[in-house]
Amino acid sequence: MHKPATVPPTGSVGTVETRFLDLPEPVPLECGRELSGVRVAYETYGSLSPARDNVILICHALSGDAHAAGISAAATTTAGTRDGFAAEDRDGSAGASLGWWDGMIGPGKAFDTERYFIISTNLLGGCRGTTGPRSTNPGTGLPYGPDFPVITVADMVRTQRRFLDRLGIERLAAVAGGSLGGMQALEWAVLFPDQVDAIVVIASTHALHPQGVAWNAIAREAIMGDPAWQGGRYHGTGRTPDAGMGVARMVGHVTYLSGPALEAKFARRLQASEQIRHTLTEPEFAVESYLNHQAASFVKRFDANTYLYMSRALTYFDLARQHGDGSLKHALEGVLARTLLIAFSSDWLYPPSASDEIADALRSLGKPVDYHLIEAPYGHDSFLLEEARQIPIVRQFLEDGIQTTMRTATP
Amino acid sequence: MHKPATVPPTGSVGTVETRFLDLPEPVPLECGRELSGVRVAYETYGSLSPARDNVILICHALSGDAHAAGISAAATTTAGTRDGFAAEDRDGSAGASLGWWDGMIGPGKAFDTERYFIISTNLLGGCRGTTGPRSTNPGTGLPYGPDFPVITVADMVRTQRRFLDRLGIERLAAVAGGSLGGMQALEWAVLFPDQVDAIVVIASTHALHPQGVAWNAIAREAIMGDPAWQGGRYHGTGRTPDAGMGVARMVGHVTYLSGPALEAKFARRLQASEQIRHTLTEPEFAVESYLNHQAASFVKRFDANTYLYMSRALTYFDLARQHGDGSLKHALEGVLARTLLIAFSSDWLYPPSASDEIADALRSLGKPVDYHLIEAPYGHDSFLLEEARQIPIVRQFLEDGIQTTMRTATP
Repeated sequence: MHKPATVPPTGSVGTVETRFLDLPEPVPLECGRELSGVRVAYETYGSLSPARDNVILICHALSGDAHAAGISAAATTTAGTRDGFAAEDRDGSAGASLGWWDGMIGPGKAFDTERYFIISTNLLGGCRGTTGPRSTNPGTGLPYGPDFPVITVADMVRTQRRFLDRLGIERLAAVAGGSLGGMQALEWAVLFPDQVDAIVVIASTHALHPQGVAWNAIAREAIMGDPAWQGGRYHGTGRTPDAGMGVARMVGHVTYLSGPALEAKFARRLQASEQIRHTLTEPEFAVESYLNHQAASFVKRFDANTYLYMSRALTYFDLARQHGDGSLKHALEGVLARTLLIAFSSDWLYPPSASDEIADALRSLGKPVDYHLIEAPYGHDSFLLEEARQIPIVRQFLEDGIQTTMRTATP
Repeated sequence: MHKPATVPPTGSVGTVETRFLDLPEPVPLECGRELSGVRVAYETYGSLSPARDNVILICHALSGDAHAAGISAAATTTAGTRDGFAAEDRDGSAGASLGWWDGMIGPGKAFDTERYFIISTNLLGGCRGTTGPRSTNPGTGLPYGPDFPVITVADMVRTQRRFLDRLGIERLAAVAGGSLGGMQALEWAVLFPDQVDAIVVIASTHALHPQGVAWNAIAREAIMGDPAWQGGRYHGTGRTPDAGMGVARMVGHVTYLSGPALEAKFARRLQASEQIRHTLTEPEFAVESYLNHQAASFVKRFDANTYLYMSRALTYFDLARQHGDGSLKHALEGVLARTLLIAFSSDWLYPPSASDEIADALRSLGKPVDYHLIEAPYGHDSFLLEEARQIPIVRQFLEDGIQTTMRTATP
C-alpha cells in the first residue's frame, strides 16, 4: 500500500491510499436495529508483525476520516480533513492532502510506524467511505438519510471490532484517539477488556458536560432548522443545508478554541479597514471572516447528516450511565488496559476535570493510569496543535508497555 | 402614571405604563445618515425633584425594553421581557408582567424611587416601542427592515440625550445598566461628561472580546442564513426567521450562563426517561429541552432585525477605538462622572478582566472608581439574578454621591 512519495516529508509514511472492506455479517446496534452491508474505509501504516501483536487502532473525531497520516494518493478527495486551526493555519496548502494526525503517526513519531502497524478507519455513520447516512440503504436503493439508525460510540467500536476480525487481528497493542476518538478508546477498554493492551485518551471525557451537550444541540438545531435539510432527505434534491452546517461549524470552531487563543490571533482587528463600515450583513471583524471561511470550506467536504449522527453519538456517550449504573468507577471495574490520559489546560469543551475523574476512578480501582495535563493555550484544538509535546509522552507510554510485556513474557 | 397595583409586591413601584415621545428633530447617526420621526418608548418611576437633579437613566441590554420595574398595565404585551434564567425560572408566571430589573428599582431598592426619578427607555433600533427596523420608514411608508441604518451605542445614547432634552432634563444623577446597558452608561460618561454625575456599569465592558464578537456573529449568521429572513424584508410576508432566531437565542443563553450553572441545574439528566431513546431529532437531555423552550418563547416576542442591529452595535462598541485612538486611558480622559463597576466572577462573556481594565484606566487618570467583583456562579446572567448582593453596593455608591454633592454645595 505504501507507494514511495515523490518528495517524502521527514518522518512521513509517504503516499497512502484509503481502502475499503465489506463486513459479511450485519452489525447489531444498541438501538435494537442492525445494519447490513456495512463497508469500512481504512488506511494502514507500517507492517504487521508475524505475531500480529503490534497493532494500534487510531480513532478519529467528529469530522475526521480514515486518512490519518501520510499524503493521500487521491488528494483532491481528502482535502482539508484536519480540524480546527491545524487544517488551514499550520499546514497551509500542503495540509490539503496530509493526514489529520500526520504529526503523530510515522517513522519515529508518537505512533511509530517502524514498530507498530497502525490502522485508521472512518467511523460508522461517517461520510468518508464507511457506511453512513449518505450510503445506499439496501432495503430501498436510496440513501439512508434520516432512516439511518441512531448510532452510539459503542456501535462504532463494535463495527471496528468486526472489521479487525476480518483482517485477522484479535488483539490491539493500543487504541488511541482525541475527543470523540478518545471516547472510542475508552469504550474499547470497557467493551473488550481482554483484547486491548493500552488506550491513549487525549482531550476526551467519559461524558460530555451539559454545556458541551448544549453546544452540540445548537449545532444540530442549526442544521435541522435549515429548510434545505428537508427532514434529512436532501440527497438528490440539489439542495443541501449549507447555511445550517455553516453555523454548526462556526459554533464548533469557537468551542474548539480558547478565548485567549482567539484574542491572540484576532483581537478586535477589523477585516477591511481601520474604521468600522457600519455594515449589518458583511463580516467586519477578522474573527468573523475567519469563521465564515471555516464554514464555507467545511460545507464543501462534509455531509450534514453525518454531522448530526456523530454529534448525537458523542453527546450520548456516558460510561457511567451505560456501564456503571451511574458510577464511573463501577463502569471501569473490568478495564485491563493500561491507560494514558492527556488533557490540555485551556480545553473548556473537554476540560481536564473529566480526565481527572477518569484517572481518579482508575486509580481507586488500582489500575495503571498515566495522566499528563499539558499547559497549552489553544483550547480543545491543542490535541492537534501540540503534537510535539505529546510525542514523547505517547512514545514513553507505549515503550513502557513493551517493557511490561517483555518482563511478563521472559520472567 | 403610577396606578396602585391590586396587590403590590413589597417595594414595588406598582402598576406602570409604557409611554411614548416623538423627537421633533432628526437624529444624526455615526454612519452619516440621520433618522427622522424617531419615537421613544419609556417608563418613569418615582418623582422628579423641583431642582430636576434626581434623575437616573436605566439602560437595557440586548433583548430588553422600557419596562424595567413594576407590573405592566398591559401585561400581555410585555410577557417575558426578562433575560436568561430570571425570566422563566425565578419569577415564574408572575415574571410575565414584572419589569426586567424590578428587583433593583423601587422604594428602598438599589435605585430608590423614594429618592430618585428613574427613567427607562427602549433603545433606538428596538422593537418595543422605540423606532427600529420594524418601524415605518417615512420615506417609503413600509417597515425599514434592512434599510434601517446600522446604529451604534453612541447613536443610542445621543437619542436618549435628545429624548431627555424634550423632558426638560439637563443633568443625570446617574446612568446605569448591565451588559449592553453598561456600554451605554460608559458612552454617556464619555460623550456628555459634564451632564452625568455618576455611572453604574454592571457586567459590562469597554469592548467585547473576540470570542464574544464570534458568538454574536454566529447568532446573526443563524438569523440571516434562515431563508425566512428574506434579506430582512420579512415583514408582511407571513414568514419570520424563527428557526434562525431560535438558534441565535440558544447561543445567547449558553453564553449568558456558566458551565457550572448548567451542571448544577441540568447535569446530564435525560428529559423523558431513564434510558436514551436513540433519537436524532427530539430533545433528549433536559438542557436540550430547556434551550428549545427558551428559543420558542423568544421568537414570539422579539423582532429578528432588532436582534441583528443590537448585536452589531454591541460588537462595534469599543471605547478605545472610538474615542482614544486605541488607548482606553485616552478615551476616558474626559470622564467626570464617578464610576461604579460591578463584575461577576463566573461571567465569561463580559469577564471581570474588562472591568479591571476600565478601573485601572480610570485610576491611572486619578478619577473616582468603585469596583466590586462579586463571586457568583451564574455567569453573565448574574447581573439579573444576584440583585440582593448588588443592592447595598449601588445604594452606597449613590449615597456617597449625594454626600459629595452636599459637601460641595455646603462647604
